[in-house]
Amino acid sequence: MTARPDTREFFEARLRAIGEERYHDRHPFHQRLHSGDCTPDQVRAWVINRYYYQSRIPMKDAAFMSRVSDPALRRAWRSRIEDHDGRAPGEGGIARWLKLAEGVGLDPDYVASEVGILPATRFAVDAYVRFVRDEPLLLAVASSLTELFAPKIHADRIAGLLKHYEFANETTISYFKHRLTEAPQDVAFGLAWVLDRAVTKADQDAAARALIFKTEVLWAQLDALWSAYVEPSRIPPGAWQPGEGLL
Amino acid sequence: MTARPDTREFFEARLRAIGEERYHDRHPFHQRLHSGDCTPDQVRAWVINRYYYQSRIPMKDAAFMSRVSDPALRRAWRSRIEDHDGRAPGEGGIARWLKLAEGVGLDPDYVASEVGILPATRFAVDAYVRFVRDEPLLLAVASSLTELFAPKIHADRIAGLLKHYEFANETTISYFKHRLTEAPQDVAFGLAWVLDRAVTKADQDAAARALIFKTEVLWAQLDALWSAYVEPSRIPPGAWQPGEGLL
Repeated sequence: MTARPDTREFFEARLRAIGEERYHDRHPFHQRLHSGDCTPDQVRAWVINRYYYQSRIPMKDAAFMSRVSDPALRRAWRSRIEDHDGRAPGEGGIARWLKLAEGVGLDPDYVASEVGILPATRFAVDAYVRFVRDEPLLLAVASSLTELFAPKIHADRIAGLLKHYEFANETTISYFKHRLTEAPQDVAFGLAWVLDRAVTKADQDAAARALIFKTEVLWAQLDALWSAYVEPSRIPPGAWQPGEGLL
Repeated sequence: MTARPDTREFFEARLRAIGEERYHDRHPFHQRLHSGDCTPDQVRAWVINRYYYQSRIPMKDAAFMSRVSDPALRRAWRSRIEDHDGRAPGEGGIARWLKLAEGVGLDPDYVASEVGILPATRFAVDAYVRFVRDEPLLLAVASSLTELFAPKIHADRIAGLLKHYEFANETTISYFKHRLTEAPQDVAFGLAWVLDRAVTKADQDAAARALIFKTEVLWAQLDALWSAYVEPSRIPPGAWQPGEGLL
């Protein structure tokens, strides 16, 4: 007997509940960051490691597009790459992230060199790129739906950084300001695409698991950051040491 | 003993000589097409099968970008996808190819459905996409350099089609007109990139082999077309039959 699928509304609620339970806004590192309790070196470690995630997002989106034979779907997806890479040098989300790096006293060339990234960050991020490259398109899109939960964390972060840290200003937080408008456009498209296509119970369950997987990718990065730079503050061999890569 | 590399000038000349010997402008099918000797069904078979190649080019370019960690290189490459997919429905190279399909009396939805493509066309085109996804970036870029030889074939084609075929007009040949300006920009970038990076003899030889491989991909498509629709005119089971997919 085939299990009865969730209604569209119930399935959407299931996906949103995954964010309530598992999105990385609930991780203590973000609470520490947004409340001003991070040391400058902890902020730097976050900027360095999160850069690796940022840098792989356009590669992940290109991997997705490489599997899409529908020009309309590729066209809808292409703006994600444009948002990150920009139209000219110095534009786009990656360049804005490097402005944040400068703001916290890091040499942007050091950050962009990807030296000092925690291995656990690489493993988690690379697992995400592979997932999008190898899994069915439905699951690849479903895994992007963590952006449903992003506007709140970006708003919290903008407020928290501006309130608590001297480095925070219009330039250094411009990455998050842009994401406030970019992410909702992307995710509205992705959510509708998943709701339209996940019409069997098996596909709905698989899409929910894909979204859970993505929350795990994000959470694991913060666990690794905490372990290396907060508690027990045991930096793995070869990872960034405070004092390295400064401007 | 390591073999001495070619000079930059000699290596570029080697690459250009590959086009002289192996580019598909030398294939009898193109000579037949451009001289007005193709029957309407032979033109249709070409349009249907070449569509599959066109449709995979943006996927190939996305596969390339999915492997590039340098935002500047991704940004330079992105215009290729934009050229093919356009900025809105009905724009871009793939839409222009479907205008050609309509012009020769084919239902564009039939063509876009990819039904009736020759298996040999799929095998050759899919081999190219896989090559770009799996081989070193240098070879992926080198394989794109058949565009060095494209302006001549596009100019010949525009003149030949306009002279010999009633279907040829500004709308139906607009794909080729656009490629006249797009391809040289792309290939100037790609050629410089390859010449800058292929500085050992081993890399130069591998890049030359990659370009030869790409000429084989193009040539094999025309051999398959000839075999199915010209001589011996033995259409493989399941491939397009004259009369199918008409407007």
